[in-house]
Amino acid sequence: MTGFPDVVAPDQEVAAAARARQDVLTKPTGSLGRLEDLSVWVSSCQGVCPPRPFRRPRVVVFAGDHGVTAAGVSAYPAEVTAQMLANFDAGGAAINVLAEAAGATVRVVDMAVGRASGNIAVEDALTDQETVDAIDAGRRIADEEVDSGADLLIAGDMGIGNTTPATTLIAAMTDSEPVAVVGRGTGVDDAGWARKTAAVRDALYRARTCYTDPIALLRVCGGADLAALAGFCAQAAVRRTPLLLDGVVVTAAALAAERLAPGARQWWQAGHRSTEPAHSVALQRLELEPIVDLQMRLGEGTGAAVALPIVRAAVAALASMATFDDAGISHP
Amino acid sequence: MTGFPDVVAPDQEVAAAARARQDVLTKPTGSLGRLEDLSVWVSSCQGVCPPRPFRRPRVVVFAGDHGVTAAGVSAYPAEVTAQMLANFDAGGAAINVLAEAAGATVRVVDMAVGRASGNIAVEDALTDQETVDAIDAGRRIADEEVDSGADLLIAGDMGIGNTTPATTLIAAMTDSEPVAVVGRGTGVDDAGWARKTAAVRDALYRARTCYTDPIALLRVCGGADLAALAGFCAQAAVRRTPLLLDGVVVTAAALAAERLAPGARQWWQAGHRSTEPAHSVALQRLELEPIVDLQMRLGEGTGAAVALPIVRAAVAALASMATFDDAGISHP
Repeated sequence: MTGFPDVVAPDQEVAAAARARQDVLTKPTGSLGRLEDLSVWVSSCQGVCPPRPFRRPRVVVFAGDHGVTAAGVSAYPAEVTAQMLANFDAGGAAINVLAEAAGATVRVVDMAVGRASGNIAVEDALTDQETVDAIDAGRRIADEEVDSGADLLIAGDMGIGNTTPATTLIAAMTDSEPVAVVGRGTGVDDAGWARKTAAVRDALYRARTCYTDPIALLRVCGGADLAALAGFCAQAAVRRTPLLLDGVVVTAAALAAERLAPGARQWWQAGHRSTEPAHSVALQRLELEPIVDLQMRLGEGTGAAVALPIVRAAVAALASMATFDDAGISHP
Repeated sequence: MTGFPDVVAPDQEVAAAARARQDVLTKPTGSLGRLEDLSVWVSSCQGVCPPRPFRRPRVVVFAGDHGVTAAGVSAYPAEVTAQMLANFDAGGAAINVLAEAAGATVRVVDMAVGRASGNIAVEDALTDQETVDAIDAGRRIADEEVDSGADLLIAGDMGIGNTTPATTLIAAMTDSEPVAVVGRGTGVDDAGWARKTAAVRDALYRARTCYTDPIALLRVCGGADLAALAGFCAQAAVRRTPLLLDGVVVTAAALAAERLAPGARQWWQAGHRSTEPAHSVALQRLELEPIVDLQMRLGEGTGAAVALPIVRAAVAALASMATFDDAGISHP
């Protein structure tokens, strides 16, 4: 597989109908702000106006270990990735609680836990075959979820060390200097930040000949989880299913996905803006404006899960508010 | 009535316990950002950690007409206020839909519909007695709601022309120039904006001797709905009940309420930042950071209703996530 078919854009005629309907609802034109834009986007993705409420929003968390933890880039030991998988299963992690609060269910995919992707500071994360297999795995998971009725996807991540390859990918795809984009991840101290920045710089040097090749980038300085996320985000668009991006790791993969399947970003919204500098750089490149900015930096899909009720509210307003004519209200 | 008893602060010992609990949940310290702050605030308001989920969040919309509409300050005719009351009753307005989406119920209070407060550009909005009566009415409504089990209040507004007195109140209480704070309200054109700014300037001149007296300000350049909102917001704090502010009209009243009952703002959060310039000025004065910024400018409590699921998510995270010890996870 791996070659993606052309992405079809969300339905622009339906978008126009949704915009026109917003303009006759009982409120001043444009006064619901971003909610109006979100409702039009959902309508155009569903191809129907008014839009339907989401019946099966689904969070998929891609978990993986990263050999670059050996470079001392994280505040947490690498074994925490596997421990967190058990926590997801037990329902005790933030994404379990926040997804439930938003009426979404959670699936966790083990891409490389306990068998880390290579230390990108000194070696490739993956082989050619592993890269293609991981992209295809993410793609297949998107297919499975859409085929099972998911009508909104949320992409999430878990993996100690994963902001290091994510930041490297974003730096490579946006021509950014490491010092401008490296953040604190789970909360490294100054010395850890310096080690992380050095690792990103070394990985970028190793990747210097493949900045324009997303598959090669995922192989050289990504990881199995990031490659799967890229396949997942791209395939959501191929399957015409709206998707909310989460933080820096997911958005790094999304940048690659937009190169694998140009136009895929039309099927995505940015759930939130995290505190990681690379996240904002990637969102700007994708021309996506986050729905919320709550200074979150947890991953797992949590920022997108918190944004989901806002998207639901937007859909409800367009679908259920009265029009001026319905309500017999004077308007300018 | 009208003299408010001292406001008791939310419980700071419980706040400390909530903060300490956040620090042992299975996530990097501080990584839930603003959600952590909100959860601590709810805990301290409830006086219990972990916090309880809200069982009866209640939106109260204060509706009133404003004589200043005669000065051509609004894009809509004054009769729309009464028409919108019928729309609220029929469940077709934005707040009906957005409150339901957030699991809240709505009460609409007719303070001055069809019997407008005076045109503040040329006369006082209210008499002394009307002002006191309106504040007391708002206060009584807060009592009724809390006594009926409301555990979170949302203050909302409806009234053609009401951003003109709201902006005047904010300008008076923050020493702001009219041109710096007058916005487009429901969407006036340039000529309407100029008329609105002139009306605010005239009202401020009329109020020039009472900038430091909140009751006099509500009488001279407020209105019955604004006075009731001030009483409502202050009494929520007296009754130790958390409250979400909405947009510029509610926040103008809240500024007055903080003067009537100093410390009341500790019981409030700003649901959102609207596009009205005066709103941001008032929030800054109250030292409240909005939860969302979705470029909304509708009123009715809609911005706060959209923020409610985020507060719920914050509460759920603190109440239901596993601790590191529960989950047997390594941490730094």
